[in-house]
Parts: sequence; structure tokens; C-alpha cells
Amino acid sequence: MIGIDIGGANLKVVDDTGVHIHYCPLWQGAPLADLLKPYAGKPAAVVMSGELADCFASKMDGIRWIVGAVQEVIPGAVFYGTDAAFHTRPVPALAAANWLASADCLRENYADAVLLDVGSTTADVVPLNRFEDLRGLTDTRRLQEQYLVYTGMLRTNVATLVSSVMLDGTATPVSTEYFAASGDAHLVLGHIAPEDYTSPAPDNGEKTLDAALRRLARVVCADIDEIGRDGALDVARQFWDAQRTLIARAVEQAVSRSGAGRVITAGIGANLFARELGGVTLEEEIGEVSDALPAYAVREVALRHSGGT
Amino acid sequence: MIGIDIGGANLKVVDDTGVHIHYCPLWQGAPLADLLKPYAGKPAAVVMSGELADCFASKMDGIRWIVGAVQEVIPGAVFYGTDAAFHTRPVPALAAANWLASADCLRENYADAVLLDVGSTTADVVPLNRFEDLRGLTDTRRLQEQYLVYTGMLRTNVATLVSSVMLDGTATPVSTEYFAASGDAHLVLGHIAPEDYTSPAPDNGEKTLDAALRRLARVVCADIDEIGRDGALDVARQFWDAQRTLIARAVEQAVSRSGAGRVITAGIGANLFARELGGVTLEEEIGEVSDALPAYAVREVALRHSGGT
Repeated sequence: MIGIDIGGANLKVVDDTGVHIHYCPLWQGAPLADLLKPYAGKPAAVVMSGELADCFASKMDGIRWIVGAVQEVIPGAVFYGTDAAFHTRPVPALAAANWLASADCLRENYADAVLLDVGSTTADVVPLNRFEDLRGLTDTRRLQEQYLVYTGMLRTNVATLVSSVMLDGTATPVSTEYFAASGDAHLVLGHIAPEDYTSPAPDNGEKTLDAALRRLARVVCADIDEIGRDGALDVARQFWDAQRTLIARAVEQAVSRSGAGRVITAGIGANLFARELGGVTLEEEIGEVSDALPAYAVREVALRHSGGT
Repeated sequence: MIGIDIGGANLKVVDDTGVHIHYCPLWQGAPLADLLKPYAGKPAAVVMSGELADCFASKMDGIRWIVGAVQEVIPGAVFYGTDAAFHTRPVPALAAANWLASADCLRENYADAVLLDVGSTTADVVPLNRFEDLRGLTDTRRLQEQYLVYTGMLRTNVATLVSSVMLDGTATPVSTEYFAASGDAHLVLGHIAPEDYTSPAPDNGEKTLDAALRRLARVVCADIDEIGRDGALDVARQFWDAQRTLIARAVEQAVSRSGAGRVITAGIGANLFARELGGVTLEEEIGEVSDALPAYAVREVALRHSGGT
């Protein structure tokens, strides 16, 4: 059995050999079926969130397309839905059920915890003792509950979280272009290494410190020689402050609502946020698959449903 | 004599026959020299802001490339700088001098006014009786003075101006993707017609009411059938409220600082903002060239400098 998580930007597969992450931007026509071919011939459990990609006129269109692409390669695949059940055909419940698969997988062993899964693009906040309340939640409802915080480690436009930064004591409103991404901020702050920056940079340029600082300076319409490396670092720091605050608030609310006793973190932001929020990483318990938690989780849940191992 | 304004997204030319606007996204490698070929053989005055496009490692790199592309087709072209002088070679002062050309052109006849020029991407706020203070301002300094408000009628990511919208009384944080643009909001609110929406939509889709509503719904991760057309319209209205407030505040500050007696508006947002802010459109005075004010203005200023007509 393999587990597959099909996001808008990344395809993640967990099998007996470990985690395989493929950059797969559906809105740019990424060849999902081709990328899945190496995994043909094995039973597969699938979750998705890629149906929201704006190449699809509706979520149902996206679900149909994704299910079709998977079945082309793995005809017997089963798809987990927000109703916590598996399906073999495209149905509305398949929209954005990846986080619920994680909850379903962890809820018994971590009933005292809130899960924070921070990926490239979004952060999922999941009170694990509230499974019945979580079931059926759409992305829109999760935004409202702060269970989905739409910012991540790599792809967030810096200008969506900060409208103005302080530079040398002067408030400086930012450009609203997609000039710099969260990946640039985390790179220059040392939170990630260049090889962790797996999505394209906003300018499709290099993932070096210099290039990231240049992109951050451009957020205030400046070259590095105008505001200095310190100025660009200030942009990064103020973005990070806004991002951390946003995610920390959502986690605090989920903890307080659910009465959870601890926070467990997963995804590529796991270490950073475990440190910041005083949580523990799931990686310590389940290993590197925590970087692709929903893919791991849907496989576990499917194995339990089938009574297999 | 022709006037040329080379932005990051649009090339605008004013000649004796009127205004010519070419979509010219420099960051996607648009063929600037080719687009200029029909205008070869005429003396030309040029302003630019396209040097900020993130295909250039620095503004000076962008200036060199743009000057080179223009000179390839129009060897005798002159370039207006933020020092209010014309140049024939790439120099740092050529960065983002388009708004100053407008100020230089209008400052005598409209000394009692603040100019508001709202384009596809940005809004320039220019107190016309302050020319000596304006000279030499960079884009970063203009952001700080609120003389540059980096939002426009078409290309602004909705999620950069609103972090949360009210839907049926419930606060709903937004997705930070580039799912909908200001052009979508202005289209569904009736501020622009489909043919005015000249930049690509975020999903490269149609410029219809239905497609724009779909894009706006996606800002809260929803399909239209989840939040209704009214929900999508609510997203548009709340974006517009934020955009109007931002621009109105900048204009009020410039009016109060400069003691100006009136507001004149130009650019594709001229009519909307004249109505909203109680201003008058420059179009009533100079005609359709007000949609390409810096291109018109740099030509006027060059003619005055040369004593020509």
C-alpha cells in the first residue's frame, strides 16, 4: 500500500522506501499521471487539496480531473474524503481532505495534542480530540475557524502578510507585487537551507542568500545598495514576525478550545515552529514521513480500514 | 516628437495620432525593441519605471537594458530622469521618473492641484506645487511619503489589501495565493468593462463577470455555489473599500501638506477616483492621452526644452 497526497503545488508519495516529493504545479499543467507512473501496480490510498488550483473552474472539476489522472495509472486507488470514508469515484467530499486524514491517523495516539502541519503554502491547525467536529469542514470553514492558515514556509507572497515595514525608523508601505516569498525570508533568516527552497523563487532566480536579499529589497522597490543588507533583513524579520503571530494565534485558539495539553508539529516548518511554540516534532516519533504527513496518514488509515498492515 | 513610457507591464506611446498601449511584461521577456519598431524614425522622449521588473538584478541593469532596446530602434531618443533633465545614456536618475515627467508637465497650469494617476498596477500621488521637493525621490522614498501607493485598477492581488473578509457576518481570513486581482473586483462592481481588463487574469482565464466572480470566491477557498454570487461580490466590495481608503488617505495627506485646492485624476482609474474623491479628470482638459499621462508629459516637456512644438 502506498499513500499519495496531491496538492496544488506538490505531489507527495509515501511507500515502504520512504517519502517522495515531486514539484507538481497543477495550474501550470503538471503531468500528474506521468509523475505517478513509477508507483503503478501498488494499491494506493489518496488524499487531495489540488482541486482548488485555479486551472479548474470548480472544485468538482478538479476532483474529476485528479481522480481520472490517478485511475489512469492506478485503477484500484481509493480516495479519502472529508466524510472520513474512502471512495472510488469523484465525489464532492474529496475536496481538501488531506488534513483530516492526518487527524484520523493521529487522533488515538495524540488525543491530548493540537497538530500544526506547516507546509510550503499553508498551515493546518488540527485539535486531535475533536474529530467529530472536524469532519465535513470545507477549506472556507477552516479559514473561519483558523484551522487553515493560508501561509507557508516557501510560497507566500511577503506582501500578503505585511502592508508596511519599518526601515531605519520610517514606516515604508510595500509593493503589492509578488517580489519576494516566505522562502526568501526563511532563507535569509537561516530557518531553511537553499536545498529546502524547493518551489520556484518569485523571479525564477537563484536560491542564494544574495538573490533572496535582492528579492526582499524589491518589496520596498529598492536595490540592495539603497537599503543595505540590513534593510532587506528587516523586511524578512517583519514578515516572519507577522507570519509567526498569525500561526501562533491560531494554535493558541485551538489549544484553548480543545483543552489540548501539547502541540505536535509536522511539515517542513516542523522544527522551526516546535521551537517557537514550545511543541514537539512528530518526526521524533514517526521519522521523515512527517514531512508528508497526509500521504503517510492516508496510507495508515487505509491499512487500518482494511485490517492490513 | 513622440512620448514613450516604459513600465514593467505596459508600453505606452503618445504620438500625433493619439495613444497606443501595448501589453509588454518585461519580466516575461516581452520584445520591447520589436514593439517599438513601428515608431522608428521619429524623435522620441522616454520615461521608464520598468527597470524595477524582477528580471533585472538591479535597477541599473534594467535601465541599461531598456535604454539599449530603445536606442536599437530610435538611436536619438532622450530619456527623462528624476533630476528633471534629459539624458542620452543609461544613468541611475532614469529609474522611475515617469511620475516626475507628469509633474513637470502640469506644474505650471495646475499649481493648485494634487495629481492622482491610477494605472493598472500603481497610483501616483503628486502635489504639483512641490516640484523642488519631488525631484530626486526614489520609489522607496515615494512609498514612505505615500506619493506612490502600490495598488492599481487591474493587477493588484486582492489578498495584499485584505487579510480577512466578512461573509454573512463571519470573519473569513483569505488565501494568500494570487487567486483574484483588482481587475476582477472592479469588473464585478461595474467600475470597468471587460475590454478595460487588459492584463491577464490571475488564472489566465476569461474576463467575464462569471469568471471574475469565480476568482473572487476562490480568495476564500470557495466555489461560487458555496458562498453565492453575493459572497463573491462581498469579497470585491471589501477589497475596493480597502483600496479606496488607502488611496484616499494618501491624497488627503498630499492635499493637506501642499495646501492644494483640488484633485485632478488621470490614468485608467481617473473617472472612478474623480467621483469618489470629488476631483476632476484631466481627460476633460487634455483628452484621452490622460490614460498615458507620463508618455504625453515627457513629450510635452521635451518639446518645451527644445523650444519646439
